[in-house]
Amino acid sequence: MARTTSRATSFDVAALAGVSQSAVSRAFTPGASIADDTRHKVLEAAAKLSYVPNSIASSLTTKRSNIVALILGDMSNPFYVHVLHAFSNRLQEEGRQVLIFTLDRNADSDAAILQVLKYQVDGVILTAAQASTRMTDICHERGIPIVLFNRYIPGSDASCVRCDNAGGGRQIAEAFLAAGAQKFAVIAGDPKGTTSQDRVRGFIERMLESGARRSDIAVLEGRSSYDGGYAAALKHFSANTQSRPDALFCVNDIMAMGAMDALRFKLGVKIPQDLMLAGFDDIPEGRRAPYQLTTVRQPVDLMVEETLSVLNLDQPSQTIERGIDRPIKGKLIWRSTIPVPVSNFRA
Amino acid sequence: MARTTSRATSFDVAALAGVSQSAVSRAFTPGASIADDTRHKVLEAAAKLSYVPNSIASSLTTKRSNIVALILGDMSNPFYVHVLHAFSNRLQEEGRQVLIFTLDRNADSDAAILQVLKYQVDGVILTAAQASTRMTDICHERGIPIVLFNRYIPGSDASCVRCDNAGGGRQIAEAFLAAGAQKFAVIAGDPKGTTSQDRVRGFIERMLESGARRSDIAVLEGRSSYDGGYAAALKHFSANTQSRPDALFCVNDIMAMGAMDALRFKLGVKIPQDLMLAGFDDIPEGRRAPYQLTTVRQPVDLMVEETLSVLNLDQPSQTIERGIDRPIKGKLIWRSTIPVPVSNFRA
Repeated sequence: MARTTSRATSFDVAALAGVSQSAVSRAFTPGASIADDTRHKVLEAAAKLSYVPNSIASSLTTKRSNIVALILGDMSNPFYVHVLHAFSNRLQEEGRQVLIFTLDRNADSDAAILQVLKYQVDGVILTAAQASTRMTDICHERGIPIVLFNRYIPGSDASCVRCDNAGGGRQIAEAFLAAGAQKFAVIAGDPKGTTSQDRVRGFIERMLESGARRSDIAVLEGRSSYDGGYAAALKHFSANTQSRPDALFCVNDIMAMGAMDALRFKLGVKIPQDLMLAGFDDIPEGRRAPYQLTTVRQPVDLMVEETLSVLNLDQPSQTIERGIDRPIKGKLIWRSTIPVPVSNFRA
Repeated sequence: MARTTSRATSFDVAALAGVSQSAVSRAFTPGASIADDTRHKVLEAAAKLSYVPNSIASSLTTKRSNIVALILGDMSNPFYVHVLHAFSNRLQEEGRQVLIFTLDRNADSDAAILQVLKYQVDGVILTAAQASTRMTDICHERGIPIVLFNRYIPGSDASCVRCDNAGGGRQIAEAFLAAGAQKFAVIAGDPKGTTSQDRVRGFIERMLESGARRSDIAVLEGRSSYDGGYAAALKHFSANTQSRPDALFCVNDIMAMGAMDALRFKLGVKIPQDLMLAGFDDIPEGRRAPYQLTTVRQPVDLMVEETLSVLNLDQPSQTIERGIDRPIKGKLIWRSTIPVPVSNFRA
């Protein structure tokens, strides 16, 4: 256990750098006021002495670890990788780091939150589908702020930050209707996630309002993944050549990419000539030349800022803000997978 | 700062679960021997009491935090996302979690390692291109094991785990030669990274051995990204219609995907008829129908296991194993972007 050597203190660093001990402290405090020149001297001296401030010791005093837990359900969906990247960059800017927890589709979410709480974290961001009131209650009881990212728990008072998913489903429905589609299919994502549920619900509600019959809308399972979208399209469309839908809504972009590849490369279906298609999220991968996917853009940067604002890590207080839920509207992005109507369609 | 409430202790949990206090301790120790039934009782009681073991307090005793730092240079290359996912899953299985640090292309790597060491981490895995002996020396001096993943520092005694990148470059060169190519281009990645340097070097060495002239091999810059590969291909190939190469080696798959999209969708180049092409890594994205990329597979799972074996987190000792470097051979995967020679070519 004796991996440590005798350590330099902040006083050693101050002496070598020729600055005050408080300057050393400020040099290592994100956002603290210090001249670039002084900071440089401190870092030089610290490097020479292999000095680093002991954040464990200081976290016992301040009760802050500068660690934020991010619980991810699925790293195979690039959307959540972009979300992780955005959180990591933003938190790092303010001297905090992301501790990652991955949750399998069938993992026990209560056990997962206990695992998270074995670490002293300043806050928890949950993006996995399996969210429970028990998880959020445990965090609330322990005074740890938690935000559900792009999902919510019906009946819970936990705060969440999300896109208006039902509204986005409606936007896709309107685009299909404007382009003249009459028979529809949906590839849904994780059935436990409110994100998929809401997108499907908004889509179907808007279709029914337009006079479509429920029987004109097939709902398939795509497990939120590329492979799931690919398999769902292959199974449904090769078995239904006569009653083939003329519009397919995949509730996320990565499933839409899988479905497109199966349809075009395996079944010879032309998009959008034979079948129009849309996704949701606007991941950069869906913008690439082989896909040019029409989709609803989730305002990720805005959602990240809103999450940090709700977590309020700089101002820990007795009470955690609960029940915050202000869905942010997404934006329909027209690309090549739905023909743009000639009439003056309003997106 | 008073976000905490009065906390249940392990004795409270033991009393409620009707087990010994040492059983509670074992239930929360990864790999400890405990009956499933007992473990279940403990977790139930712990959940009821919102009890979690305080790993900060215990880390001050054991000097272990169960946190491993992963320094990532680039999350826009899916290869490193797969690496992150693999490390996160494997470490989580043994009760450890990954703390992420992202390093910009132009970031100061010495400042980054000091940032890492503000946290008490049990080990450091470095995948960013900017590795310096100063970074590894600081870790060694502080008794923290560090492994360079898929890169190394010439002249350094830091251990590294990597694919045989130069050998992989040679494998691609042989595939091109077997398919009859005579004029070549390479899209290189981050010039600071040994990974890209070695792949380019192996490729060129094998070409020169075959009698090619150095002037028959153009080397372009692709910045290791999809957009960089796209831009490099667009710039080079639209300007050189007469002296167009007949084979293009992109030193990673994500640049190859970008280059393929620019060549096919912007310049109308047919692959492999007009130009044969290969990548490196074998990311799942390159296997998809629009790409079907011929590449060299990096043995990620093996590399992850080797990294954990070198870090040796379970057996902290006075000395850290240094200087370990056993490159693991990659495997050539034939798909559609190089015509398979009719003759009995040996991969």
